[in-house]
Amino acid sequence: MSIKLVNLKGTKDYLPEEQYLRNKIRFTLEEVFKSYGFRPLETPILCFMDVLSSKYAGGAEILKEIYQLSDQGQRELALRYDLTVPFARVIGMNPQLRLPFKRYEIGKVFRDGPVKTGRMREFMQCDVDIAGASSMMAEAEFILMVLDIFDKFGLDVYVSYNNRKLLSGILQCLQIPDPKINNVILSLDKLEKIGPEGVRQEIEALQLQDDMIERIFNLYDNKQIDLDYFSDNFPNSLVKEGINELKELNEYLLEVDALDKTRFNPFLARGLDIYTGTVFEVFLTDGAISSSIAAGGRYDKIIGGFLDDGKEYPAVGISFGLDVIYNALSMKKEFKNNRSEIDFYIIPLGTNKESLRLASLLRKNGWSVDIDMTGRRLKKSLDYANKEKIPYVIIYGEDELKSGIIKFKDMEKGEEKSLSLQDIPQELKRFLPKN
Amino acid sequence: MSIKLVNLKGTKDYLPEEQYLRNKIRFTLEEVFKSYGFRPLETPILCFMDVLSSKYAGGAEILKEIYQLSDQGQRELALRYDLTVPFARVIGMNPQLRLPFKRYEIGKVFRDGPVKTGRMREFMQCDVDIAGASSMMAEAEFILMVLDIFDKFGLDVYVSYNNRKLLSGILQCLQIPDPKINNVILSLDKLEKIGPEGVRQEIEALQLQDDMIERIFNLYDNKQIDLDYFSDNFPNSLVKEGINELKELNEYLLEVDALDKTRFNPFLARGLDIYTGTVFEVFLTDGAISSSIAAGGRYDKIIGGFLDDGKEYPAVGISFGLDVIYNALSMKKEFKNNRSEIDFYIIPLGTNKESLRLASLLRKNGWSVDIDMTGRRLKKSLDYANKEKIPYVIIYGEDELKSGIIKFKDMEKGEEKSLSLQDIPQELKRFLPKN
Repeated sequence: MSIKLVNLKGTKDYLPEEQYLRNKIRFTLEEVFKSYGFRPLETPILCFMDVLSSKYAGGAEILKEIYQLSDQGQRELALRYDLTVPFARVIGMNPQLRLPFKRYEIGKVFRDGPVKTGRMREFMQCDVDIAGASSMMAEAEFILMVLDIFDKFGLDVYVSYNNRKLLSGILQCLQIPDPKINNVILSLDKLEKIGPEGVRQEIEALQLQDDMIERIFNLYDNKQIDLDYFSDNFPNSLVKEGINELKELNEYLLEVDALDKTRFNPFLARGLDIYTGTVFEVFLTDGAISSSIAAGGRYDKIIGGFLDDGKEYPAVGISFGLDVIYNALSMKKEFKNNRSEIDFYIIPLGTNKESLRLASLLRKNGWSVDIDMTGRRLKKSLDYANKEKIPYVIIYGEDELKSGIIKFKDMEKGEEKSLSLQDIPQELKRFLPKN
Repeated sequence: MSIKLVNLKGTKDYLPEEQYLRNKIRFTLEEVFKSYGFRPLETPILCFMDVLSSKYAGGAEILKEIYQLSDQGQRELALRYDLTVPFARVIGMNPQLRLPFKRYEIGKVFRDGPVKTGRMREFMQCDVDIAGASSMMAEAEFILMVLDIFDKFGLDVYVSYNNRKLLSGILQCLQIPDPKINNVILSLDKLEKIGPEGVRQEIEALQLQDDMIERIFNLYDNKQIDLDYFSDNFPNSLVKEGINELKELNEYLLEVDALDKTRFNPFLARGLDIYTGTVFEVFLTDGAISSSIAAGGRYDKIIGGFLDDGKEYPAVGISFGLDVIYNALSMKKEFKNNRSEIDFYIIPLGTNKESLRLASLLRKNGWSVDIDMTGRRLKKSLDYANKEKIPYVIIYGEDELKSGIIKFKDMEKGEEKSLSLQDIPQELKRFLPKN
């Protein structure tokens, strides 16, 4: 056979050791999402291309990265590239859903783009969104939820946040010409990444008037960039709106003791097209991963624009990256797999059927049990259990069969503990810690 | 906008009410899979077409139903149509994996075929497989696992089982001409579905010799179809092998008290190509769903044939259908959603920030909490909580703010319970049942 077994670049297999931790991450995310009143939704991966590509559904950049295909009926189909369009579509197709509609969805999305670190062509997206809520309470809940989640993971994070109205209003006041305003936003957005000097170089390359460049520099060179500074220096209605929203959000964050875990960053933008108000990004406090490990914001125009039904759907959402959280956790010692998720490995020596019964007994009492079915030599089976880091091995031979006494061998310590078969349900939990 | 919001036929949205139960099913499946020593695996949906379509990977029938596409690099890609080919590929690509390799995978698969009841074009497959185990202990463990799973779901099932060697051997003995042997197998396989008369009609239509037809009829008209009957009447090495395997399996099933939940069906075939030994299908005992709700068997040749590496990979696997288990459970009263998964709905009346704090307090104590963010009229919010079947509502107004006494309103009984804020963590669990 000449088939080369290989995966498409930008896709990968998650082998059990990695997948165990990914499943734990997923489980924790879902638990917290649910405790905040978000409900599970599952939408199809296969979509009609015209629905995915309609004008408000992401913009031209993303269109190039949509995987297209057709079925036997020659329908033009595509693989979903995010979970936001399906969210909007579900709202449009299900008028019985009551607003605000809060949902989470965890599922695969696909992008036919260049592959680089942290950029797969097929990846698991975890999205949490609320549609139909214009109050800053929504943002406060999202930020609280973020902090809850990373607290559960034992990861110290902070939330960087801003309001796009403030940033847009400031740049309006600076009278930066429209064609260059987006470039300025994108450059300022990189302030934390490339530093003031890096931003200065990018801004200078834009060939703006000298006084305008200075005014932009002054923005972030100023030591006291706070809301008062902006409201004093940029008398503009957008700035005012942005500041009011930020103040309301701050008030909530203060009340729920979350303010010390947040950092106002007036230059945070998060791309150009989607967000209309609050934006936020979550970073590891120790900087072990430089990119954000979750991010979101308010996008009040997207769903209404997509559905075009004359209604407004003020919305806030956040995306968690399963892979980046995995990376953050796998750096921590306590998440290194130092033992198998399997508690016991039974090696039958002429006791196949009795060993099956013992496995069944242990499982009924909540343990995870594997059993040798190969009949290989004892040494090979012990070697297998060792390499798989299964903590306890039970050798079930003729002696055990006669005596009814089962020996549990601690593979790490080399110790043995004996229990009679009938005592196992009661006694086992006493000396073995639950995984 | 002229885009019609619609899903491709054979795909669907799972709205929250349905998705809650699907998630519970998935969670229970995973718990039991793990307790039997199966490890999680996640493989990509996007695959190279030549890997998916190589000769042993499913046969010509399925090739027609593979969704094909290409990426920007003009690579010929496809969407996976099952989880068995990825399983074999992972074994081939990862020589570090120790055999027997036991894994489960739950993920979407895609088939571009005709849509009918129970036949979607995109569906969630739950596969559990072991590679590298030739002992009938593997089959016994699978059948035990099936019984454990449906016991946890509270569904009464039985496992119908057979061995393909027995069936093939019998038909060899009957000297049915090769071109018709498959048709005879497919007809006999339908015995439980279409009854003896239906099978008789199909067999007669095959234009076999009269005496051969009679011998086939005699097979299942015989009142005592048991292993002894076959071994006495069909002296054939395949029959003998099949009977030995069935006897070994029966011995295991007897030992673990599972025999009364199984039914030997010597005509069960489960399709034609894949299975080499034991086959089994799981049915609801009450027949509320006529199709099988899980099925599997031994396929000793598939992985070795796919990998073509000169090694043998005796394997057993089972597939669970998330949708069919959902259908079975949703017929049961106790799985009808008679309340929301959300425990509390807080309605702030001028207490936005304090309500956020209360929500946070309740969540820290393990409850699921939603909060009104719309500022709509009280009646509307109460109506929302009612329709969403949220069991408890908290109206948080000026009085509560002053007194620090919070009223929990039981929406079903109309009763109220008051607790002071500081007593909530200790007292709340006393009078509210956890969901």
